[in-house]
Amino acid sequence: MKAYLDCYPCFLTQTLKTARFVTSDEKTIRQILDEVGLALAGRSFDAPPPVISQAVYRIIAARLGVQDPYREIKKACIGQALSLYPRLKRLIAESPDRLWTAVKLAIAGNVIDFGANADFDLKRDVDQILAQDPAVNHFPEFRKMLDKAGRILYLADNAGETVFDRLFIEELQKPVIYAVRRSPIINDALYADAVESGIGEVARIISSGVGTPGTVLAFCSHEFLETYRSADLIISKGQGNFEALSDEDRPIFFLLKIKCDVVARHLGRNKGDIILMSSKTNSLPIPG
Amino acid sequence: MKAYLDCYPCFLTQTLKTARFVTSDEKTIRQILDEVGLALAGRSFDAPPPVISQAVYRIIAARLGVQDPYREIKKACIGQALSLYPRLKRLIAESPDRLWTAVKLAIAGNVIDFGANADFDLKRDVDQILAQDPAVNHFPEFRKMLDKAGRILYLADNAGETVFDRLFIEELQKPVIYAVRRSPIINDALYADAVESGIGEVARIISSGVGTPGTVLAFCSHEFLETYRSADLIISKGQGNFEALSDEDRPIFFLLKIKCDVVARHLGRNKGDIILMSSKTNSLPIPG
Repeated sequence: MKAYLDCYPCFLTQTLKTARFVTSDEKTIRQILDEVGLALAGRSFDAPPPVISQAVYRIIAARLGVQDPYREIKKACIGQALSLYPRLKRLIAESPDRLWTAVKLAIAGNVIDFGANADFDLKRDVDQILAQDPAVNHFPEFRKMLDKAGRILYLADNAGETVFDRLFIEELQKPVIYAVRRSPIINDALYADAVESGIGEVARIISSGVGTPGTVLAFCSHEFLETYRSADLIISKGQGNFEALSDEDRPIFFLLKIKCDVVARHLGRNKGDIILMSSKTNSLPIPG
Repeated sequence: MKAYLDCYPCFLTQTLKTARFVTSDEKTIRQILDEVGLALAGRSFDAPPPVISQAVYRIIAARLGVQDPYREIKKACIGQALSLYPRLKRLIAESPDRLWTAVKLAIAGNVIDFGANADFDLKRDVDQILAQDPAVNHFPEFRKMLDKAGRILYLADNAGETVFDRLFIEELQKPVIYAVRRSPIINDALYADAVESGIGEVARIISSGVGTPGTVLAFCSHEFLETYRSADLIISKGQGNFEALSDEDRPIFFLLKIKCDVVARHLGRNKGDIILMSSKTNSLPIPG
């Protein structure tokens, strides 16, 4: 999916928000806005949003002199999610369909985000998503593919959401390779975040090689690309990974919450909808 | 009130929205976004938002080759408001306090806007605002000042809202001078819009001399400024006029709906709140 013109003002909104996380100096924030504005003006939008996003966040980090502005927030989100872990584990154990509950929790964890929509309340939003039916629901296909799958690749999204991923992976009952970003971008999970969330106990953690908030294949490492090409089931979390991989012809299941109008329009769905969508059935009528 | 940094991305959102009203050519829209972005980057924010807004909309109009992109929309809004006129007139006639109902309707008319928030449904929103208590309510002071006032100046905001202004002016029972913008800016009322709304029958219509979406005194005509300085009651409609005049030491009553987070924060109120506020009592506790 390529960036839309609606992403243009949104990049500046994100710039403002991120800069304000780190500093209250209006002059510095203004300089960053100007610099991002100038960079956007000269930039092709013939790329997925995560590619442009990376350029934007690089400017912000450079100007702020902070390599990872969301570091503390990521830690806090992981801590908060870990505190929910026992309750969620029990919820899965007591549910009539463990895999279904786990997949919904994995999508629920995607409410944690500071890019497109930073306004969330983890506990409340998780409860709400558990009560919500996915607007696109390819769970039957997912279960079938999972049964046959030998090599599962799991593309992580945000720190904290990683704890929900762990719960889901525990239900997959298969070996999983879990791919995180190589370098800090927004609140996306890095290697250390995955470890801190306990992913190391349930999957092999690798880096995709990117510092984009989405798995942009052109920027991925050779090692990652080999794993990606040989996987027979790819679980892709979040909008960023969807934006980067929506046109790919691989056996991908996209799990996400729609967080902005652009992705809503692209999918013909509504903001706030939750999605469990197979790349193979994008154009097919949605099964019940 | 000076522009906040939050206005920066909002100017680009407004640019996108306005350009899309006129053209679907993505390349042209992109060029306009770039040009506005570059203009913002070099611009001082040490001015009320309407001043910057004018520069933004001038770029849009020049690039689109359309002097008044909202012309048709303004006509449609006036038509829609005129069709509600008989019902609203009856509503006032049948109400226990005609002036109070009329002032609330005048604020309700302020939902018509294509700047800060273009998402409105006139009939539904009017009903909702009539049922809503103002978050700031200086109506007792307003009534007192009105009783004594000899020279009333009324600062118009949007086309269509003008019909609601007419209903309000009819209840004032005093001579009123009604000031509109000199040249097209967003959907703000011009002379012809005021006439079409029937304002000519209840007030003398003058131009403030500005093409800014708010009465920025530095840009006003000498004729208007004389009227402004000698008025003993000034009724100011909408966010734009509030942004331009909020620091003024004149007997102004601000009637508006809060349409964006910036003004909400500035006033310590919420987006969606309706306001009837005296400039003289800004810092006083709010009477019941």
